[in-house]
Amino acid sequence: MQKSYITETICALATAPGIGAIAIIRLSGENAITICNKIFHGKDLTQVDTHTVHFGTIMAGEKIIDEVLVTVFKGKQSFTGENSVEISTHGSPYIQQQVIQLLIKHGAQSAGPGEFTLRAFLNGKLDLSQAEAVADVIAANSETSLELAMSQMRGGFSSEIQKLREALINFSSLIELELDFGEEDVEFADRKDLKDLVLKLNHALTRLIRSFDYGNVIKSGVPVAIIGEPNVGKSTLLNVLLNEDRAIVSEIAGTTRDVIEDEMVINGISFRFIDTAGIRETIDAIETLGIAKTFEKLDQASIVLLLVDASKITRKALDEDTKKIAERIEGKNKHLIIVANKVDNTKNQEGLLKTFTGIKNVIFVSAKLKDNVKAIEEKLFDFVQSGALNNDVVVTNARHYEALTKSNDSLLKVLEGLDNNITGDFLAMDIRQALHHLGEITGDITTDDLLDNIFSKFCIGK
Amino acid sequence: MQKSYITETICALATAPGIGAIAIIRLSGENAITICNKIFHGKDLTQVDTHTVHFGTIMAGEKIIDEVLVTVFKGKQSFTGENSVEISTHGSPYIQQQVIQLLIKHGAQSAGPGEFTLRAFLNGKLDLSQAEAVADVIAANSETSLELAMSQMRGGFSSEIQKLREALINFSSLIELELDFGEEDVEFADRKDLKDLVLKLNHALTRLIRSFDYGNVIKSGVPVAIIGEPNVGKSTLLNVLLNEDRAIVSEIAGTTRDVIEDEMVINGISFRFIDTAGIRETIDAIETLGIAKTFEKLDQASIVLLLVDASKITRKALDEDTKKIAERIEGKNKHLIIVANKVDNTKNQEGLLKTFTGIKNVIFVSAKLKDNVKAIEEKLFDFVQSGALNNDVVVTNARHYEALTKSNDSLLKVLEGLDNNITGDFLAMDIRQALHHLGEITGDITTDDLLDNIFSKFCIGK
Repeated sequence: MQKSYITETICALATAPGIGAIAIIRLSGENAITICNKIFHGKDLTQVDTHTVHFGTIMAGEKIIDEVLVTVFKGKQSFTGENSVEISTHGSPYIQQQVIQLLIKHGAQSAGPGEFTLRAFLNGKLDLSQAEAVADVIAANSETSLELAMSQMRGGFSSEIQKLREALINFSSLIELELDFGEEDVEFADRKDLKDLVLKLNHALTRLIRSFDYGNVIKSGVPVAIIGEPNVGKSTLLNVLLNEDRAIVSEIAGTTRDVIEDEMVINGISFRFIDTAGIRETIDAIETLGIAKTFEKLDQASIVLLLVDASKITRKALDEDTKKIAERIEGKNKHLIIVANKVDNTKNQEGLLKTFTGIKNVIFVSAKLKDNVKAIEEKLFDFVQSGALNNDVVVTNARHYEALTKSNDSLLKVLEGLDNNITGDFLAMDIRQALHHLGEITGDITTDDLLDNIFSKFCIGK
Repeated sequence: MQKSYITETICALATAPGIGAIAIIRLSGENAITICNKIFHGKDLTQVDTHTVHFGTIMAGEKIIDEVLVTVFKGKQSFTGENSVEISTHGSPYIQQQVIQLLIKHGAQSAGPGEFTLRAFLNGKLDLSQAEAVADVIAANSETSLELAMSQMRGGFSSEIQKLREALINFSSLIELELDFGEEDVEFADRKDLKDLVLKLNHALTRLIRSFDYGNVIKSGVPVAIIGEPNVGKSTLLNVLLNEDRAIVSEIAGTTRDVIEDEMVINGISFRFIDTAGIRETIDAIETLGIAKTFEKLDQASIVLLLVDASKITRKALDEDTKKIAERIEGKNKHLIIVANKVDNTKNQEGLLKTFTGIKNVIFVSAKLKDNVKAIEEKLFDFVQSGALNNDVVVTNARHYEALTKSNDSLLKVLEGLDNNITGDFLAMDIRQALHHLGEITGDITTDDLLDNIFSKFCIGK
């Protein structure tokens, strides 16, 4: 696979499809510059310096297709590590199509999804987890998700894995050495030191594995469910929560087409409200606690907002509701926030306090008057932050999560083996397994299937 | 207006909105390079050469927003004729928004529609008709419409207008000179030469004005109506005509989102089928000739395809139908093509020939068997080509059409005046009017309203 990828010159539209002021068509491969030179009329592109821009026309025979700017990147200094050209055309889909067809006619091939980034990986410009982070950077839609992806693309995650792996490789080679001297029953690898190292690795991997929950919600948005009896004000609250955010997002024209309905961003973390269609369609969807639909929402959510009418609810009803929810979400790392709404309607302040005494995580609001709604946002943010575990490196990728988990399983077997004094050859096998899975993350160990699977998820042109 | 535009530095997303591999954010203005330099960490952009590309990071304080490539264009050598920077970011809408917000925070202003091209005009890089052609290039969706727009952007149309205008200015100044010697009754401007020139101008303008019909259909597609009784095979024919084209268009992934339903391109000219919803919804919409809806279609169309069932229709019915249509389209530069369908169903070949003897523009087809459908396409193309008048310069812009018409009206007044031997001062007034309107086309004469009107139709970022 590597072979065929590397010899061909590939091309694709790199900017978003559709009409814009300009569009970029990208070429990469040994012949990128010479192929482009065949259809470009202006300076001789084979004679220009790397990282320079040149004005000219793209011609199909005698016919002018467009006036363009062409940027030339030479060899190792490009993103892919190969000769690359970026053609900046006018942003007409018709022109884009014409230029790509011309390039193909002159020897380029249409690029597959992620093929430019795959080449960067194959040419040693990025390791595998960095390459994967490129897709996350493109898909990032909040400050925190971008930060995680960017730190991963810059190698933060890889270097942590790399360090752990190297330490283990050292030990592994000592044990392999013992096997060579198998008959003589020597121990080059101190078993106590090995156990200390494996425990340290196990600790680090566990930390990374745990960070996945956090990383995952950051990447795709924290799922939040709003539940409550009819007429407690669910739709009003939802609108108040969502509208504040909307106003900020729509400031910049032309960049806001991808705003997801029913999502809001608090301090750079995005929160997704689950199944709000019902809530928004009617003034207040009928939803009694205990019906199947509500339970489904609880299962999907990381945070549950139980909305109650503070002016009406009794302590007994409140206890029953919270008990039902608590049973359902117990031990699942989910959070419950009780929002006591309609405090503006409540005449009996004393009764109110009595009803809610001793209940955890209560926030008193008036959704109608937009009173204290900010406190809900702060609570949502706090819950997510508390899960952040205060480490910089966060796992966001399901593939990495799986590899880390498998690697850790092998390490646990090593520990077990050490406790049972098993022989070096069995230890070596488990250590090799652990190393293998760690290597999969950075791409030190790859298979064609693995690469295909990773890069097929990219968009074309990247 | 000019003043305020020129002092500010503007920025906008220049590529299509949405997710792509990369996106370009464009800055133009005196401070474009220094503003970008404030958020760019890499080389000092104020020290680099024009037309060079630099890798670095965009930072918001301590926070990395993205790794980018920045291209610097200096002064007169940029598209706008001012300092310009293009920032190539990862194609996430979130990143685009963050970078634009940062630029605005550091002193740039959000660009209005077409503001980059307006600056190119105000800085003398393009004349007005060339600037307008930029928008046409972006919107071009067929070979011929792109060719027209491209030739206009490269100044083909302007230079023709410019030549005519200069000749007239020469005469105008001679006549103005006469006015200075008003008392002495001299004639510096030879009246016969003037008349020759005005006739020549009148001829050229008439030619350009006539080309507008052609240019207009090229730009927006030639409107074609398919009409006929129920069950003559309208939907089958439409599908056969459209499907062939579709296959070509969808070859290049990622560039075909803007394909218009019910449009086909023949030899680079696009044809739009009018009101085909009814035809495609049902197997064959019921549509009797003479009902109001059919007449509406005739009025909108440039070319009418009357589809008849060759196996059934009588000469009498055919004559009645064609007469009705002919009355409606008479003198309106519309074309009628009669398509005799279902020839595969016709046993009586002799009767068939008799029915259609002497009828103009008949094409015999079997839509079901896709037989001879190509002949319809050729006929459609021929009709449009015959309107092309064989001149290279074609008017496609309604504003230019209006200015040319007004200018020509003034020239006709000059001719009338010459025939009636009116005095130089009246001639001078009409010549001035003619010059004024020609000057509006290239932007030698502009008003703020005119510029606002033109550039507000552009997309943002251009």
